[in-house]
Amino acid sequence: KVIWTVLVTILGYASSLPVGEDALCTAEELAKYRIIFTGKWSQTAFPKQYPLYRPPAQWSSLLGVTHSSDYSMWKKNEYASNGVRDFAEKGEAWALMKEIEEAGEKIQSVHGIFSAPAISSGTGQTSTELEVHPRHPLVSFVVRIVPSPDWFVGIDSLNLCERDHWMDEVSVDLFPYDAGTDSGFTFSSPNFATIPQDTVTEITCSSPSHPANSFYYPKLKILPPIAQVTMVKLKKSQLGLSAPFINLPAKSNEIIDTVS
Amino acid sequence: KVIWTVLVTILGYASSLPVGEDALCTAEELAKYRIIFTGKWSQTAFPKQYPLYRPPAQWSSLLGVTHSSDYSMWKKNEYASNGVRDFAEKGEAWALMKEIEEAGEKIQSVHGIFSAPAISSGTGQTSTELEVHPRHPLVSFVVRIVPSPDWFVGIDSLNLCERDHWMDEVSVDLFPYDAGTDSGFTFSSPNFATIPQDTVTEITCSSPSHPANSFYYPKLKILPPIAQVTMVKLKKSQLGLSAPFINLPAKSNEIIDTVS
Repeated sequence: KVIWTVLVTILGYASSLPVGEDALCTAEELAKYRIIFTGKWSQTAFPKQYPLYRPPAQWSSLLGVTHSSDYSMWKKNEYASNGVRDFAEKGEAWALMKEIEEAGEKIQSVHGIFSAPAISSGTGQTSTELEVHPRHPLVSFVVRIVPSPDWFVGIDSLNLCERDHWMDEVSVDLFPYDAGTDSGFTFSSPNFATIPQDTVTEITCSSPSHPANSFYYPKLKILPPIAQVTMVKLKKSQLGLSAPFINLPAKSNEIIDTVS
Repeated sequence: KVIWTVLVTILGYASSLPVGEDALCTAEELAKYRIIFTGKWSQTAFPKQYPLYRPPAQWSSLLGVTHSSDYSMWKKNEYASNGVRDFAEKGEAWALMKEIEEAGEKIQSVHGIFSAPAISSGTGQTSTELEVHPRHPLVSFVVRIVPSPDWFVGIDSLNLCERDHWMDEVSVDLFPYDAGTDSGFTFSSPNFATIPQDTVTEITCSSPSHPANSFYYPKLKILPPIAQVTMVKLKKSQLGLSAPFINLPAKSNEIIDTVS
């Protein structure tokens, strides 16, 4: 009777959940994508306290994961994991890689980890390939804003599967988040742990609502995107290195230069 | 007649070459490896001018490639490419990724690119997976020493294939190299382009032979290794995320702490 009750509870809980985003993916086999991250953190777009020295504005390595809805790398309004905290505060990826690995081993909720090299300026690009699976069609990643207390940009559980097929191309504008673990207000604030830890929050032009905040622009309605990510599905003939960069410019900041 | 001469020339040239390192690889199919990079740049081992602030001692992203002997990422006593220069001086990976891509497209000499996240301290670890192919059994990579003028560690064309099989595990101690593009003498030297560019040289405890050099330790015979890399072949059951980290510690610097 006890066992039966537990089962009913589990089934009841499961059926009351919203249908998992990945539950309906009936696409065939794996798909590979090129992911291109473009920093748009220029002094023109973000003049306030723009970091010019030691270190100048730049982006950390990109660390990402393809997974099912049973795993979450980070989520707005929830607490950051220790791994996300280490990455957002210091760009240290190891603890986060271990967390992802454990989720992969224990609950089979992870398909693979991917990473792309850091970018040495606020505007520039980096890129790598990723692989999704019908049971693991979601993409999440983080890139630390350098310098900053614990600020990052990223994507949480973007579904690349649309029912029975994989999306050809997805582009998303990115805005800054605060990991909730360091109370610094400006790009170059000294370390000052937030105790108790706060949840992950989006940083906007009006929140935190304090003139000292590096992203506080009271005359703007919304911040311009500080970065952008594009994922392009690779055709089978493009797998491997045959066409991984898809007509990108020779220099990582050429696109930026011509747009602005 | 002309065509015949050309053919003979090509054949003559080819047969006079030393046997390519990858020419004899008769291993079956692809192999996957986990590559683990361990920074050993501690203040204890390298007390001279050890960088503590803005930035403290750390390692850039790791950028690597699997390839045939027709491609070379970098080579001791040869000139660094523009991509290697950008990476060694600034940690900027884009130009180097483009060079690798072009080598992959033009002469089919590249199998794949891989990268691993940066390490936020001098001692610590990072890791990713790589794939080799019987026609592309060589591994090369670079990691920039941060801060430094244009110093890096890396591997040039390590062959993971032994005749008909793939090596199970390879570990290599790493020592610092100077990319020959910036004449700075110490970790935090200001930028000072080397014109004309010099070749890639190993930095030892006695070379450059000048007391101001950050690695000049006249009482030592050889420098201790500043980093180490280990490549472990993944069994087919370990492909994907089932066992990618192979009993590594929870924190990236635990091995270091217990060794030293």
